[in-house]
Amino acid sequence: VKCSLCEQDAFYLRKTSNEYLCRGCFVKSVEGRVRNTIARYHLLAPGDRVAVAVSGGKDSLTALHILAKVVKRLPNSKLLAVSVDEGIAEYRQQGLEIMEETTNKLGVEHQVVSFKELYGAGLEEIYREAGLRHGELQACSFCGVLRRRAINQAAKRAGASKVATGHNLDDEAQTIMINLMRGDLPRLLRNAPRPMIEREGFVPRIKPLRYIPERESALYAYLRELPMYEVECRYVRNSMRDSVRNVLNEWEEQYVGVKYSMVRMVDKLVSEMPFEVLNTNLKACTICGEPTTREVCRVCELLQQVGLKTIAA
Amino acid sequence: VKCSLCEQDAFYLRKTSNEYLCRGCFVKSVEGRVRNTIARYHLLAPGDRVAVAVSGGKDSLTALHILAKVVKRLPNSKLLAVSVDEGIAEYRQQGLEIMEETTNKLGVEHQVVSFKELYGAGLEEIYREAGLRHGELQACSFCGVLRRRAINQAAKRAGASKVATGHNLDDEAQTIMINLMRGDLPRLLRNAPRPMIEREGFVPRIKPLRYIPERESALYAYLRELPMYEVECRYVRNSMRDSVRNVLNEWEEQYVGVKYSMVRMVDKLVSEMPFEVLNTNLKACTICGEPTTREVCRVCELLQQVGLKTIAA
Repeated sequence: VKCSLCEQDAFYLRKTSNEYLCRGCFVKSVEGRVRNTIARYHLLAPGDRVAVAVSGGKDSLTALHILAKVVKRLPNSKLLAVSVDEGIAEYRQQGLEIMEETTNKLGVEHQVVSFKELYGAGLEEIYREAGLRHGELQACSFCGVLRRRAINQAAKRAGASKVATGHNLDDEAQTIMINLMRGDLPRLLRNAPRPMIEREGFVPRIKPLRYIPERESALYAYLRELPMYEVECRYVRNSMRDSVRNVLNEWEEQYVGVKYSMVRMVDKLVSEMPFEVLNTNLKACTICGEPTTREVCRVCELLQQVGLKTIAA
Repeated sequence: VKCSLCEQDAFYLRKTSNEYLCRGCFVKSVEGRVRNTIARYHLLAPGDRVAVAVSGGKDSLTALHILAKVVKRLPNSKLLAVSVDEGIAEYRQQGLEIMEETTNKLGVEHQVVSFKELYGAGLEEIYREAGLRHGELQACSFCGVLRRRAINQAAKRAGASKVATGHNLDDEAQTIMINLMRGDLPRLLRNAPRPMIEREGFVPRIKPLRYIPERESALYAYLRELPMYEVECRYVRNSMRDSVRNVLNEWEEQYVGVKYSMVRMVDKLVSEMPFEVLNTNLKACTICGEPTTREVCRVCELLQQVGLKTIAA
C-alpha cells in the first residue's frame, strides 16, 4: 500500500482519517497537528521561555523534540527542560540520565528539582513516614500534588513563561472521563490545552500533544529514534484510570474518533463558559505563601500529615 | 436486616447512600426524590396541565403514578396522558391497552396519536417504503424524530403546558456518554431536566425521573403492583447505547454513584452556561410550519425521503 500523500510505501493507517501514511508524511503530520494545536489554542507567543516538563518517557521526549522545532521559529523565544526527581530509587534515575543526554544533544538547558531539596525528603522516605503502601491510590495523588508544585517551582526558577507537558489525547480523554465519573466540574473545566485564566504564581501549563493519540506519540518517538524508556513507577496503581483506559480503547476500536470527540467537546465547552464560572479566587497559603483556594495549600497539608515542612522556593 | 429509617424488615440496600430500606420507606424515598427533582429544577408550576408521555413501560407508569400524587397537590393543575401509536403490529398494541386500563383507574384523560393519522402511514409501512431493515441504527433515529413530533402534537392538542417523560438516571447517563463520544455539545447542553429555554411551538419536556436509577424505577413499579410490560420493540438495535449501558453498569458496581455524578455534573454545567450559548434561533419549516433551526424540519426531510407528506396538526 502506498502513502495517501506521496508515492512512498505506507507504514501506518490513521483510522480517524482513513489515510495511509509513509514514515516521512507521518512525522510531518504529527508535527503539523501539534503546530495546529499551538496555533488554534494560542499555546505560545513570541518572547515565551518554554520549559518542557520532561520525565524521559516517550511523550515528554516527543513534546521536547517537536517544541524544539516550533520554538526555533518563534521570535525571541527559548526552550528549556525541567525534571523532577521524586526520589524513587532506580525508576527516576534512568529517566534523568536519558533526559540529560537528550537535552545535551539538543543544546537545551536542563534543570532538575528534587523532592528532597524542596520538601526535605524524597518520596520513598515520605511514604515510609506516612505508612503508605505500594499500590495505594493515595500514593499517586499524594505524589501528583508534590510533583505539580515542584514543576511550577522549577519553571519559576528557570524564569519560564510557560510549562509544556507531554499529555497526549489518550491521557486527556481518560481524565475527562474520570472527572465526569466523579462529577468534578471544576476540574473538568480546568482540563484545557492551556489555562483559560492565568493566575499569579502559577506558570501557565500548556499541552501541545493534547490531540496526538498515545499510539502516534509512541510511533513518532520510535521513528525519530528517541531513546525509549517506559519503565512504570512501581507505586503506580490507579484502578479507575486503568478501567477507563481499557474501555476507551475498546470504544475507539468500534467507534473511531471517540477520544478526539471527547477532548474536542470539552475544549469547545470551556471556550464558551463565562469568565466568572472559570475564575476562582486565590489567596496565599498561610504556611508557604504559594497561591491556593484554601487557607493551607494541599502541599502543606500533605506534608504536615507526614511531619514535614514546605521549604519556600 | 432492619430498615435504616424505621423498624420494618429491609428489602433493599441503596448502595449510593448505604441505606437499608423497607418497602414502605423505599416507595416514599423514590417519591421524595422525584419531588426534590421537581422542586430543585422547577419542573412544575401551579396551573400546569401536565401530559405524561406513556408507553406502557415501567418508567412511564412510575412517572404517571408519582405525578398523579404530585399534581393533585399543585393548585389549578391537571394530569393527562398521551401515547403514540407508531404502527408496529403487536408491540405497541399491548402497551396501549395497559395504558388505557391504568389511566382509567387513575381517572386520567388519555389521548393516543398515531403515525398513520399524522404522517399518512405507520412505521412499518414507512420502513417498507424506505427499505430500512430491522436492526438498522437508522430505524431508531428515524422513529425517534417522528415520535418526538407526535408527542409534541398530542400535547398541543390536549392543551398541555408540560410534557413529562419517564427517562430514568440510567437513560440519562447513557445519553450524556453517547453525546460525549460523538462530541455533540449542542445535544449535551439540551440534555437537562427541563429545557433551559422555552421555544414557541414546543411544549416543554420535563424529566421527573432523571435522578431515579432504572433499578429503583422498576422496583417502584413492582411494589406498587403496576402492570409489567417490558416488551422491546423488535426494531431496536442501538449497539452504541448497549455498549455504553454495559460499561456504565460495570462502573457503577465498582465506583458507586458514577451515574448520579455524571448527570448531576451536566445539570450544574448547563445551569452555568450563558443564555446566548444555549439559545438557538428557530424559524418555521417551509413545508409544515413547525419550529425548526433548518429550512425544512427533520420530520419533513425524513418523510420526503419515503414519499410522504407531513399533515399539519
